[in-house]
Amino acid sequence: MQKEDIVKKTINCIRILSLECVEEAKSGHPGLPLGAAEIFYVLWHKHLIFCPEDPKWLNRDRFILSAGHGSAGLYSLLYMYGFLSIEDLKRFRQFKSKTPGHPEYGLTPGVETTTGPLGQGFATAVGIALGQRILQQKLKIISSELSELINHKVYVLVGDGDLMEGVSYEAGSLAGHLCLNNLIVIYDSNKTTIDGSTDLTFTEDVDLRFKAFGWEVVKIDGHNLEQLDSSLNFAKKSTKPFLIIASTKIAKCSPNFEGSHKAHGAPLGEDEVCKIKEKLMWSKEKFYVPDDVKNYISLRLKELKKEYERWQDNLKNCLKKYPKLKSLLDDYLSTDLDKSQLNDLLLELKNLKFDKEFLSTRTAFGNVLQIVAKKIDKVIVGSADLAHSTNALIKDSGAIQKDNFNAKNIYFGVREHAMGCISNGLALYNFRPICSTFLVFSDYMRPPIRLASMMKLPVVFVFSHDSVFIGEDGPTHQPVEHLISLRAIPGLYVIRPADAYETLYAVYFALRSKDKPVALILTRQDVAVLDRKKFSSASGLLKGGYIISKEKNKTCDIILIATGSEVYLAIQVQELLQKDGFSVRVVSMPSVELFEEQPQNYRDEVIPQDVKIKVVIEASRTIGWQKYAGDNGLIIGIDHFGNSAPYKILQQEYGFTAEKIYEKLRKHFKI
Amino acid sequence: MQKEDIVKKTINCIRILSLECVEEAKSGHPGLPLGAAEIFYVLWHKHLIFCPEDPKWLNRDRFILSAGHGSAGLYSLLYMYGFLSIEDLKRFRQFKSKTPGHPEYGLTPGVETTTGPLGQGFATAVGIALGQRILQQKLKIISSELSELINHKVYVLVGDGDLMEGVSYEAGSLAGHLCLNNLIVIYDSNKTTIDGSTDLTFTEDVDLRFKAFGWEVVKIDGHNLEQLDSSLNFAKKSTKPFLIIASTKIAKCSPNFEGSHKAHGAPLGEDEVCKIKEKLMWSKEKFYVPDDVKNYISLRLKELKKEYERWQDNLKNCLKKYPKLKSLLDDYLSTDLDKSQLNDLLLELKNLKFDKEFLSTRTAFGNVLQIVAKKIDKVIVGSADLAHSTNALIKDSGAIQKDNFNAKNIYFGVREHAMGCISNGLALYNFRPICSTFLVFSDYMRPPIRLASMMKLPVVFVFSHDSVFIGEDGPTHQPVEHLISLRAIPGLYVIRPADAYETLYAVYFALRSKDKPVALILTRQDVAVLDRKKFSSASGLLKGGYIISKEKNKTCDIILIATGSEVYLAIQVQELLQKDGFSVRVVSMPSVELFEEQPQNYRDEVIPQDVKIKVVIEASRTIGWQKYAGDNGLIIGIDHFGNSAPYKILQQEYGFTAEKIYEKLRKHFKI
Repeated sequence: MQKEDIVKKTINCIRILSLECVEEAKSGHPGLPLGAAEIFYVLWHKHLIFCPEDPKWLNRDRFILSAGHGSAGLYSLLYMYGFLSIEDLKRFRQFKSKTPGHPEYGLTPGVETTTGPLGQGFATAVGIALGQRILQQKLKIISSELSELINHKVYVLVGDGDLMEGVSYEAGSLAGHLCLNNLIVIYDSNKTTIDGSTDLTFTEDVDLRFKAFGWEVVKIDGHNLEQLDSSLNFAKKSTKPFLIIASTKIAKCSPNFEGSHKAHGAPLGEDEVCKIKEKLMWSKEKFYVPDDVKNYISLRLKELKKEYERWQDNLKNCLKKYPKLKSLLDDYLSTDLDKSQLNDLLLELKNLKFDKEFLSTRTAFGNVLQIVAKKIDKVIVGSADLAHSTNALIKDSGAIQKDNFNAKNIYFGVREHAMGCISNGLALYNFRPICSTFLVFSDYMRPPIRLASMMKLPVVFVFSHDSVFIGEDGPTHQPVEHLISLRAIPGLYVIRPADAYETLYAVYFALRSKDKPVALILTRQDVAVLDRKKFSSASGLLKGGYIISKEKNKTCDIILIATGSEVYLAIQVQELLQKDGFSVRVVSMPSVELFEEQPQNYRDEVIPQDVKIKVVIEASRTIGWQKYAGDNGLIIGIDHFGNSAPYKILQQEYGFTAEKIYEKLRKHFKI
Repeated sequence: MQKEDIVKKTINCIRILSLECVEEAKSGHPGLPLGAAEIFYVLWHKHLIFCPEDPKWLNRDRFILSAGHGSAGLYSLLYMYGFLSIEDLKRFRQFKSKTPGHPEYGLTPGVETTTGPLGQGFATAVGIALGQRILQQKLKIISSELSELINHKVYVLVGDGDLMEGVSYEAGSLAGHLCLNNLIVIYDSNKTTIDGSTDLTFTEDVDLRFKAFGWEVVKIDGHNLEQLDSSLNFAKKSTKPFLIIASTKIAKCSPNFEGSHKAHGAPLGEDEVCKIKEKLMWSKEKFYVPDDVKNYISLRLKELKKEYERWQDNLKNCLKKYPKLKSLLDDYLSTDLDKSQLNDLLLELKNLKFDKEFLSTRTAFGNVLQIVAKKIDKVIVGSADLAHSTNALIKDSGAIQKDNFNAKNIYFGVREHAMGCISNGLALYNFRPICSTFLVFSDYMRPPIRLASMMKLPVVFVFSHDSVFIGEDGPTHQPVEHLISLRAIPGLYVIRPADAYETLYAVYFALRSKDKPVALILTRQDVAVLDRKKFSSASGLLKGGYIISKEKNKTCDIILIATGSEVYLAIQVQELLQKDGFSVRVVSMPSVELFEEQPQNYRDEVIPQDVKIKVVIEASRTIGWQKYAGDNGLIIGIDHFGNSAPYKILQQEYGFTAEKIYEKLRKHFKI
């Protein structure tokens, strides 16, 4: 058989398998895999370096299908190239299969990140590419010859939709700035989106746009194998991030749907599949892969295996030659920190003393961070142009720049959304990213927070300026709905420490987390540093909620539950009530989610069910707190947008003073 | 006095007043107003057409300070040009003043939109510019000579931060596509952000980027008055949206802070202000405006007054000549719809019959929308590339395009964030925008939803595909935390109708809303169309919650509260329980916020406090529902991410069948 024939057959095999997946599920997106089959083939068969037996191989090329709706294409490749079984393909889009509607990280070998919400995959890939450059730099410092150990590429397939999303511009601009030449993006430009032709709304010059970002760009025919091959060869040698604009026809080879937006998101139907099979002279048998295609692929897999073994041999030699190498590489095999590292960190943190009477938790965080950075190499820190405000800045390290990847601070620019995605990418590269902005701007980056949670990545999202008490900047900068909105994301710990000492434990907890992201909520304003001889140890934070100040008598009349800056306020209210003879307990509840993970008996101990008077105090929306206040409880919160004014005025106006809360409480409970 | 001198003096007056504001407040951002004083002067004194006595004049030029932190500059202008008093300036950043930390729409005459969260102002301005083009087109249809009645420009001042945000790319790309040549953006390019020089992270070629979007771009020295003036003259004649890249020095004229990022966000201090005053030979008197500057401005104001009167004269003539004109213009004087229009609409909607037994609420919405579009001219509809899925498409109208503004459908592209902002801009232009995407993607556009709410704009945000029951697309596309996250935004109505008839009332309610945005939450899957002879009228939706199916006996044992697709499920559970002899009530609660606005007695009537067994059913996170379920209540929800599978499988797996809920309920309450 001619070489050319087997190539065509392999490409059509991708097409047909993808179609079968969608038909079998009666659901899915056939248009992209049909149109991008040549791209898939050339990339996977000719360029991508991987090892199906070791899908987590450190130096594998990464392939990210940002246009995640084309998952049937990816799964077909993963089957053909040995990652998945035919049974997996047949269970496309079925409950708990390895082949869900959109690629999901952790579920499917060979899937590098969860994609589907458009633009996220592209921006996450920028983070992965950045991770590679930073790790490579660490190897280089040991010896320049080691840089070849981690020299893989990051390939991304994007569609029109990805490139319309704002996050793709943010990430593209930063990738250009950092000159990430390990990043190669193929744009499946089929000029078709769900609603019709891109002429309806998307006529920008993508070539020029990416050149403006400092990328190298070529335009090719996405069905032309030679052009695909040579552009990828060219891309691999580029000194800049590289965009291949590949013109394709959606649903290529479909007699009735080629070029039509109707092929985007629904099965083409049995009739059409028959027609396509006829046209491609394909067997009617379902999920059929010709033997010669299997053989052809196995030859490629053998080559790849050799490549893999060469790398492993090289690694062995390097490990002998450079003793430091082992621990460095081991460190990047998972996101986890080992126990001894964590214990060391905790010991050191416990020595930290905060001498001031009042200190903002963001300042405390900044202090803690300097210790963390010294102790844990894979912590990497960044901010969306607010490093000096959130204090997410490692002082004795410089800025990561295109000529310096040996640094710990990333200047993300005013690009919160990309910051979130890039942080996810870094976590996928087993770094421990800590990124930061103001709490109100968490709204700009909810999609990647959600994905971090879904992917179980322990990214730390630091949100300072956490209430209306930021003061003069006014309601546009004052969060009120953000705490509950973040608490609503499943699998995310939201931690709002009460003071410097709780902040210390919060950071420790965040780094101890293996499979959940943490949102760390910090004050702008100074709050009391609680004297831990007088009050319980801040280590109570590790249980999410704890009795910070006990009642005086044996029985407890009133429980005050507070978070963050309101804990000290609750303690002041406690004092006022105690003067009146009440026995009052204050519970600090920095993390509701974490508290709810504790055993029922602990929770009942902290908040006994028989105490009838319960008050929750948090300078945020009251929604969600009824559970703790109970039916007759009182929730002191802020259910409206804020105002621009000095924060002490706002405390008065909004009733966040001990006296006003005391009065409100006595009135509410008629005591 | 030389012309040149008075010009300099006026410019320095802007500088000094801005400084004084910040010093007086001991808080604020002096860097931008100092650096952009020449831009402010040339734009406001030479180009901007406005009338301080009639700040809402329909044909005024709009000026939007997207870099809202420079508010001291804007307020100084508003004072100098007759919108604000000196007292207003002195109360900069004080509680309930007209001069809050960032510009806030509705609070300050001359402020066209709320800005501060970066990128929002720019994107909102695109919406305002689009609104102008659409209204102008409507006038043109009456007569081509009328197009000059609404021929104003939309000017925007943006900073580096604005242009880093993804939304500015999305909006810029769409503005280019639509060729909005009434949009003139001045980029105060001081190469400085909070964290330092833009060289740290933002080195893209902004010129090339905007050219890629189809804009015309010039680069000038932002302190050079002639260049500013001529570029603005040039911009006004452009056939494309226009970007002026004006290089400036932040904190210009400050001996110690010029060019430094330290001038961005904090007062420079009394000493430095003295030095600046000395350098500019300015009076030490606070908030001093020289008489000759006052005179010079009053001359300009007289010219503007003439311009205004000319326009009014022309309007009078046009009104005589074209009788249709009056009602058209009246319609665009506010966002409100008049009562007779609303009554008409309701009458017509009430005639709508849904003949099917099962119908998705998104389909019902599509049907309702066709009637709405016929009845209400200023309704304008759009989607972020999901028009055929959300059904936010007016079938007998075309697409708004650069050569056709006489249409009702906007193809926003996959640009949810820009869609939200542009919709806000259209609402500021007194259109009634209805924009749409999937509920899960509401995360991409929370910042403009928040601003719509803060600005009290009755934008309708349609979010279809409202639960895990979208099925196969999987967890990335399945909302679980989004309902509570939206409900948490103050001042937003979230409405999740149970069936086609509730959808009808929901749309009517949304259009009746004068000062609150509405999020309309719709199903992908078919839900029962409830027989309203058997069940209460769907007009109950207008109270947020109502008894949709009464208990059989005089007393009520159990109340089932449900929203959206779960209402019919609750009715099925009611049937099962009634077979066992329980007296069960079902409450449909499409909008919690609306229900909570009802008088206490109505609420007690619907959910009497003495009924002990209360169950809430909603296919979404349970957080927030405790309030209605009560201490011992049961909340049936979904507190984890979803799965990719056919939705009927998910209903089984997640326990969303009548039988499973029935069992759970009996077990929970031990009945």
